[in-house]
Amino acid sequence: MTTVTSLFQPVDQDLHLLIDNLTKLVGAQHPILGAAAEHLFSAGGKRIRPAIVLLVSRATMEKEDITSRHRRLAEITEMIHTASLVHDDVVDDAELRRQVPTVNSLFGNRIAVLAGDFLFAQSSWYLANLDNLQVVKLLSEVIRDFAEGEIQQGLSCFDTDVSLEKYLQKSYFKTASLIANSAKAAAVLSDSSAETAEKIYSYGKNLGLAFQIVDDILDFTSPTEVLGKPAGSDLASGNLTAPVIFAMEENPSLKMFIEREFSEEGDLEQALKLVYDSQGIEKSRAMASHHSKLALQELDCLSPSPSTQALIELTDYLLSRIK
Amino acid sequence: MTTVTSLFQPVDQDLHLLIDNLTKLVGAQHPILGAAAEHLFSAGGKRIRPAIVLLVSRATMEKEDITSRHRRLAEITEMIHTASLVHDDVVDDAELRRQVPTVNSLFGNRIAVLAGDFLFAQSSWYLANLDNLQVVKLLSEVIRDFAEGEIQQGLSCFDTDVSLEKYLQKSYFKTASLIANSAKAAAVLSDSSAETAEKIYSYGKNLGLAFQIVDDILDFTSPTEVLGKPAGSDLASGNLTAPVIFAMEENPSLKMFIEREFSEEGDLEQALKLVYDSQGIEKSRAMASHHSKLALQELDCLSPSPSTQALIELTDYLLSRIK
Repeated sequence: MTTVTSLFQPVDQDLHLLIDNLTKLVGAQHPILGAAAEHLFSAGGKRIRPAIVLLVSRATMEKEDITSRHRRLAEITEMIHTASLVHDDVVDDAELRRQVPTVNSLFGNRIAVLAGDFLFAQSSWYLANLDNLQVVKLLSEVIRDFAEGEIQQGLSCFDTDVSLEKYLQKSYFKTASLIANSAKAAAVLSDSSAETAEKIYSYGKNLGLAFQIVDDILDFTSPTEVLGKPAGSDLASGNLTAPVIFAMEENPSLKMFIEREFSEEGDLEQALKLVYDSQGIEKSRAMASHHSKLALQELDCLSPSPSTQALIELTDYLLSRIK
Repeated sequence: MTTVTSLFQPVDQDLHLLIDNLTKLVGAQHPILGAAAEHLFSAGGKRIRPAIVLLVSRATMEKEDITSRHRRLAEITEMIHTASLVHDDVVDDAELRRQVPTVNSLFGNRIAVLAGDFLFAQSSWYLANLDNLQVVKLLSEVIRDFAEGEIQQGLSCFDTDVSLEKYLQKSYFKTASLIANSAKAAAVLSDSSAETAEKIYSYGKNLGLAFQIVDDILDFTSPTEVLGKPAGSDLASGNLTAPVIFAMEENPSLKMFIEREFSEEGDLEQALKLVYDSQGIEKSRAMASHHSKLALQELDCLSPSPSTQALIELTDYLLSRIK
């Protein structure tokens, strides 16, 4: 079976450098943040975001010959992503992420807010020093979208009026915007044509949406050991994702349990059963597959290369996770 | 007696517009942030930072004719300042600021982290859209300096080895960097010469340092009713400012009380007495006056105008607060 690590083989060395660099950039200056940084960057994320930036960088450069600015962009992308996770965990009062204790649970909210601010600040600074105004605009859009997505998520908690459209918008803000805009920024740094940059943006956007939908499906279908939390915990916390939205369309009685916020004995179990008994998960799979195909179509702008091939296979890999 | 409001008369109208705009920009989009925004921007700050940006803008433009980009820069400056206050209050677990309850005490840490992130994100976005890479760099430096200053403050708590040099560095990061870099950015937007921009930066830096020193003196000399907290509360919380650093030089026995973090009955009272009995406050006044004079010297680069006059008088006004 393909693993995501094997897909990233063309950028393997750069990804190793990136982790070392990030830990140094953040940790070395401030012992107080050192432990937090070590914890953050070693906590075994899949580095999908910087990997996509590096793969797009190679795929859009002659002889796949990338520059130090492409590498810096990949670092900035991971910094922004990590900063947003740290603040997300403060906002959600989360204790675990990827089965590892969060920064706020280990070091307290104080350090977690500071660590997130420091990472955002570092990323803005490195970004400005890439000396490309278009790239600055693309990534500042991402930071704004994150805040927007987090607020929308807060507002739509337990709101059974949430539409698929709103769900996709929120998923764009929280997940796809970073992938789309950072991938486009990589193409911009390669001096790609405006048309290619736009197609890369659309690749990233659709890949990001598929990515979020797959994650939301896995929250229902993965065993507790893999999730590090009980299945259906998105639903339990009022975060209504694609499988639930489809299930509510099919069986509106599901809404009652959600609207009373599972306040009566057995509510959550009954609601989960209604989701599993519906076509919700199947329809969500189809939606992920649709966005994955849209992503794939955009890649015709790239010349064949090992990196282009990896970007292609990434769309299939995503779907294989929910088969 | 001169009031700061009378000094800002040349930019009075622009400052009124600014508050309206900021409340609209933040509040209108998100009811959940509306109350927080209303609270933040109406909470009667003196708007010193945007006023300086607007005054420098007028003083560096022919016929004091400023552009919408200058006004936007003033808004961005106030947004960044406000965002940093909101996160500061979360980090310090503060209940009151300017005698008004903080966002975290009114709405909880969750909304406070989000509100700060949203303001930082908005400011990055507006900044990028000023379309001037030099301005982006200047303000991204500020955001980085804030995070740095907040961390240094955390690290140097109750540390009696703190030097005047370190104190000034921290004051630069936390206060002077924003004033210096935003004032310089205003000159850059006016197409001032590099030399003028540098002098304006130095004006802002020295004014900002004087400003911080004056604030730190007032923490010892103002009545509780004015401070909204007991005099000497910086010292009580381990934040060792200029008056304490001078007093420790004069009378090293002060260090003992600080090093044991005022853990014994009467420690804080004795430590405060040692500060009041020393030349610490007087020497701090002299230091504030020194930086205020340095600031004044830089203004010879500006042609005479009501705005230039206001910038000059601002340096005197500052010192009048501690007479």
